[in-house]
Amino acid sequence: MEEMIKVAVDAMGGDYAPSEAIKGAVAAVKEKDNVEVYLVGKQEILERELASCTYPKERIHIVGASEVIETGEPPVAAIRGKKNSSIVVGMKLVRQGEADAFVSAGSSGAILVGGTTIVGRIKGVERAPLAPLIPTKDGVSLLIDCGANVDARASHLVQFARMGSIYMEHVMGVKNPRVGIVNIGVEEEKGNALVKETYPLLKECKDINFIGSIEAREIPAGAADVIVSEAFVGNVILKLYEGLGATLISKIKGSMMSSFRSKMGALLVKPAMKKTLKSFDASQYGGAPLLGLKGLVVKCHGNSKETEFKNAIIQCISFKEQRISQRIGENLVAVQEKKEEI
Amino acid sequence: MEEMIKVAVDAMGGDYAPSEAIKGAVAAVKEKDNVEVYLVGKQEILERELASCTYPKERIHIVGASEVIETGEPPVAAIRGKKNSSIVVGMKLVRQGEADAFVSAGSSGAILVGGTTIVGRIKGVERAPLAPLIPTKDGVSLLIDCGANVDARASHLVQFARMGSIYMEHVMGVKNPRVGIVNIGVEEEKGNALVKETYPLLKECKDINFIGSIEAREIPAGAADVIVSEAFVGNVILKLYEGLGATLISKIKGSMMSSFRSKMGALLVKPAMKKTLKSFDASQYGGAPLLGLKGLVVKCHGNSKETEFKNAIIQCISFKEQRISQRIGENLVAVQEKKEEI
Repeated sequence: MEEMIKVAVDAMGGDYAPSEAIKGAVAAVKEKDNVEVYLVGKQEILERELASCTYPKERIHIVGASEVIETGEPPVAAIRGKKNSSIVVGMKLVRQGEADAFVSAGSSGAILVGGTTIVGRIKGVERAPLAPLIPTKDGVSLLIDCGANVDARASHLVQFARMGSIYMEHVMGVKNPRVGIVNIGVEEEKGNALVKETYPLLKECKDINFIGSIEAREIPAGAADVIVSEAFVGNVILKLYEGLGATLISKIKGSMMSSFRSKMGALLVKPAMKKTLKSFDASQYGGAPLLGLKGLVVKCHGNSKETEFKNAIIQCISFKEQRISQRIGENLVAVQEKKEEI
Repeated sequence: MEEMIKVAVDAMGGDYAPSEAIKGAVAAVKEKDNVEVYLVGKQEILERELASCTYPKERIHIVGASEVIETGEPPVAAIRGKKNSSIVVGMKLVRQGEADAFVSAGSSGAILVGGTTIVGRIKGVERAPLAPLIPTKDGVSLLIDCGANVDARASHLVQFARMGSIYMEHVMGVKNPRVGIVNIGVEEEKGNALVKETYPLLKECKDINFIGSIEAREIPAGAADVIVSEAFVGNVILKLYEGLGATLISKIKGSMMSSFRSKMGALLVKPAMKKTLKSFDASQYGGAPLLGLKGLVVKCHGNSKETEFKNAIIQCISFKEQRISQRIGENLVAVQEKKEEI
């Protein structure tokens, strides 16, 4: 019998909680036979919402959690203080092995803190990076790290490169993924202190396909599969992707409404263009995994709807099937042993 | 009589040297009566190119410079070693007061190094930031710093905020410009060590309109007039603007060619859309001033053509007329005196 993947879903997180998270869970179990969802949140509300859905009953369960961590709350205090919140309860399921993964569109800060303190890092992992997929000209790239660890050290970035490489190869199926470090020029001597320290360390890594520095200009063209960056810079890249895309699209739409001639044209190009713009929407690629933890934690965008939740849940299947956490652990142990040999 | 503004132009810098720089100079003197251009570069080549142009002869002069600094050369060595290069010769004209400004599309590194070592900083200025205008939804914002000083300190960023504010108010005519610092969240406690240190200092500045943190997502929407950032992050923002714009446009064009229906529509929307996309092209706003120097230095994009050179030259007129360097000097002296009083 096929192994069943168990995913805990924070039903209380995100702008459209709980209905979109529930719809996403229903869609996921209908699409995939080997996934079981634990919806975590206020029991009565979830029961009422679920009552109107049709789905294989044995594969969606409700786990009660009476509290909710709000987006504005200081993360550390929230994780410590709200023991019965959907985030803490959901993450405990992962820690105790009752779920393989936890998906949430709730407070980023709380998810990052909870990931490290509740689920816990794999032995040898110094920091757990948040690594969303971002759209590029002909595919996607993994942006690692993008908000979990500001002011990171060079050794952290080297681990991010390794973990990102494992993820892209085994979850996304990219053979020998190209790893680049975000820099302000392509020459080896360019960069800030952190990049200058990290570059030679990445060059020495025999287990990754390091292609050197990439400038931010080249990211949308797909210059690397794994884009290594300190969290502050990574976050700026991710947010600018969103903001610039939205502004450009609104300007283009505006220009199309500027004359009778262009309005006619707009009607004709609309279907083709909509498809293109959709493919360039960073939010559609499910969620961002928090890598390097003992179980998978996936952070979805706050404005996630049914499709994003569904994609995030399905993403957990390959993560588990491909044994990503084990691979990361083995890789880091191997690197450590090699160092000790020398 | 109106004061004549003297602009030295590096005729040997950029991808289309020397012809586009020359065309830009010719266009500028034709458009504005109060500007005089000193074209710096290889005498014979410039004489030959100029011979075919019609322009007011008394307002374009050639200044011979036999060497050229290439883009790949290590900047410090190039500035020291090539005393007769167009960049060094042009900057010396500014230092000696023979020109008010220097415009170049050549090596960024050499321009930054030369700006500080040849033209020199205004007394009190700790670092000279590179500050391009970037397009936003309904206008432009000044991105300061974007490549001149990686690993800057908090006191540098505070000066950038002041200088940027003066520039936007007096050159761009923005009343009481809104100053924001790039951050990964809008709450005061968010950020990396540098931003956390800089934020309270900016809050204390009575001479600027500090509006707090802005996320990269809000930049394209025009959330601030002056966007303060450490150079590494600023450079990433600028380059991603270019790269993402180019990729999105190429994808949209591709989608329009995908069917007969959309091809027809494309013909109709093309004129309106072209205008919109042009307004969102970062390279069209002349050049990026290097602020805080004793004279103006403007860095143009390497792929600048006639219009960009012309705009950069014309930009120098308001800079000089509005006495930006003097204003910056006075502002910093005033701040210094206030500190000493306390």
